[in-house]
Amino acid sequence: MQTIIDETVGIARHLTLNRPRQRNAISLPMVDELLQKLTEAEAASQTRVLVLRGAEHNFCAGGDIGDMLTAQQNASDGDTDAFYHLNRRFGELLERVNSSSLVVIAVLEGAVMGGGFGLACSADIAIADHSCRFALPETRLGLPPAQIAPFVVARVGLSQARRLALGGTTLKAREALDIGLIHQLLDSSTTLEAALQGHLDNINACAPGALATTKYLLLQAAQIADKYALSHLLDDAAKHFSNAIQGSEGREGARAFMEKRAPEWQH
Amino acid sequence: MQTIIDETVGIARHLTLNRPRQRNAISLPMVDELLQKLTEAEAASQTRVLVLRGAEHNFCAGGDIGDMLTAQQNASDGDTDAFYHLNRRFGELLERVNSSSLVVIAVLEGAVMGGGFGLACSADIAIADHSCRFALPETRLGLPPAQIAPFVVARVGLSQARRLALGGTTLKAREALDIGLIHQLLDSSTTLEAALQGHLDNINACAPGALATTKYLLLQAAQIADKYALSHLLDDAAKHFSNAIQGSEGREGARAFMEKRAPEWQH
Amino acid sequence: MQTIIDETVGIARHLTLNRPRQRNAISLPMVDELLQKLTEAEAASQTRVLVLRGAEHNFCAGGDIGDMLTAQQNASDGDTDAFYHLNRRFGELLERVNSSSLVVIAVLEGAVMGGGFGLACSADIAIADHSCRFALPETRLGLPPAQIAPFVVARVGLSQARRLALGGTTLKAREALDIGLIHQLLDSSTTLEAALQGHLDNINACAPGALATTKYLLLQAAQIADKYALSHLLDDAAKHFSNAIQGSEGREGARAFMEKRAPEWQH
Repeated sequence: MQTIIDETVGIARHLTLNRPRQRNAISLPMVDELLQKLTEAEAASQTRVLVLRGAEHNFCAGGDIGDMLTAQQNASDGDTDAFYHLNRRFGELLERVNSSSLVVIAVLEGAVMGGGFGLACSADIAIADHSCRFALPETRLGLPPAQIAPFVVARVGLSQARRLALGGTTLKAREALDIGLIHQLLDSSTTLEAALQGHLDNINACAPGALATTKYLLLQAAQIADKYALSHLLDDAAKHFSNAIQGSEGREGARAFMEKRAPEWQH
Repeated sequence: MQTIIDETVGIARHLTLNRPRQRNAISLPMVDELLQKLTEAEAASQTRVLVLRGAEHNFCAGGDIGDMLTAQQNASDGDTDAFYHLNRRFGELLERVNSSSLVVIAVLEGAVMGGGFGLACSADIAIADHSCRFALPETRLGLPPAQIAPFVVARVGLSQARRLALGGTTLKAREALDIGLIHQLLDSSTTLEAALQGHLDNINACAPGALATTKYLLLQAAQIADKYALSHLLDDAAKHFSNAIQGSEGREGARAFMEKRAPEWQH
Repeated sequence: MQTIIDETVGIARHLTLNRPRQRNAISLPMVDELLQKLTEAEAASQTRVLVLRGAEHNFCAGGDIGDMLTAQQNASDGDTDAFYHLNRRFGELLERVNSSSLVVIAVLEGAVMGGGFGLACSADIAIADHSCRFALPETRLGLPPAQIAPFVVARVGLSQARRLALGGTTLKAREALDIGLIHQLLDSSTTLEAALQGHLDNINACAPGALATTKYLLLQAAQIADKYALSHLLDDAAKHFSNAIQGSEGREGARAFMEKRAPEWQH
């Protein structure tokens, strides 16, 4: 399997989500590969930075439809926790990226949707060009952005999180900069690469142990590193997701999506 | 009694604060009516959105002076908790609006002051036109913005909350947008109505149960839905309010306001 | 000793950090003087505002190198807690300024670095002119911004705190305004003084007891006034600082700084 392009250059491990035909939607095998490569990168003494991006000018369009169908089959076969585990596994990835001892930089282009939005929120530094479109479209499919919610609130604050998640609104890159979802907006692919290099040079001047300690202290200060509380929140969120996707709204959302029609709840 | 204009159109319940001569200052009867209509709206299966606005181009200028006078009389007659209960009852409204299962949209014009400021902060989506003026003038009357404080902090963050509440500064609509107090700023009454319709259309495309679950998860993530902690905070705040209004500053603030003169503390 | 210029004008106590040749780096004697004068100011019935600034157009460049050398000597002589106590004492100053019953205004010019950055974040109102440069350069010296971290997170949010602290990036005044690190940006020294006077006039119109209660309620709402939790966090942070400065990175950072060369970790 090969859902990730993996390159190490100097202090940086570059992981590129590589399912371009699915706009790099995150599948379970991709979650597993990302977790494995993150563990390797954290153990490599030369590595200080994780650079996350997507192949062919999209970051990530969200979760994978194939995994949904598999979980549906498993649920039909009696595995009542199939959706809970699918959802919670993605939250484990977000937790691990968010609290990684490495500095994580997200390089954002094109679609940054749903789970991709959550992944962008778990990076330390997020840079983007004008091609980006950000959205949390889950509620339009009858689902809550369950594992993603705590990371979005931590990133843009409760006020912007409410407005974004409750309307399913799409944000352009400039608006994302204004609300602190991204930290730097570049004009072109060329300047995006130059900005990334600038951040790598900055981090190269910082001591790696001090960076890891600093990140730990910042997360402590924001209480999101309270592993017990966050895990409890994500467990609860996965239950809500599992209930939603198997409930009448989730089933109707899936049918409407497949049949390319408006869902019943839309008057 | 009729302090609220109440209309239902499609998925939206429109509640308009209707005491225009008092710039829609929130009286106890208005709190009671709002709570009753909120309960009804949450129970109505067709309703997904609560739209809050004020009659005649003001949102809400704060608390009602008549209620203050009544509480003063009750306190004089030996009811030591009269001000505590008056203040806490308003906080109950804010709690209920903030955590409502409906999506709450505040349409803001003119005065958005004191309690009106707090009510705007408890909405999910706040849109405004350039006529708006935002302020927390309580400390100029010798009072803390007691029930309002947690909702302001949750909305604009501690840093902006400190600067706004401690100086009693007035903000224009553009500044309110910059600090995330409102989410969208429109040029005119016409574009304000169009923007409201756009949000209603967005919400119409989202599943109602998923919206309610999403809101619950976002509030959990921000810990403001920790009902025990928030209620404890609001109880404590009401005690401070009650002490302030019956103390020397509160009494002097009221006298100075009535006598249209500067209070003693202003050199 | 005289590390502070101290003037009282009307309702305001003006404390000016006065070690201009060290760009007002905060030494232990300065911490002691600031704490003593803060206690006096809080006890003076006429005083409502503390104005913090730096002599000769720099606010504060951070911690004092002389204190570091003394602590190093003490550590060599067997005082294993020398760095812990040095770091923690500065955190005590930040805690006291942050939760002071007075309104604290920081007037910022020139260098606002490290500990000076932390001090600016503990003020209620921060105003600046275009000469300001803001940075958290600690990690470049092999150290975490340990006592500062909670105050930075409370001021600019976790997202901006991560990006600032992890790259050691320098911010200009305009960027500091955009992320809410400062509340007002002025064109010149003259307009800076006029803006300060405007804030003093606003505060003069507010009742002093109501201001103190309001500040207490806002800090409660943001949980940063939870003295036990914050103190616990700062204790933990001081241990991490002490470990970092005596570890290999901290020792190399100090050597490289003294020898005006790049540290070993910079490739």
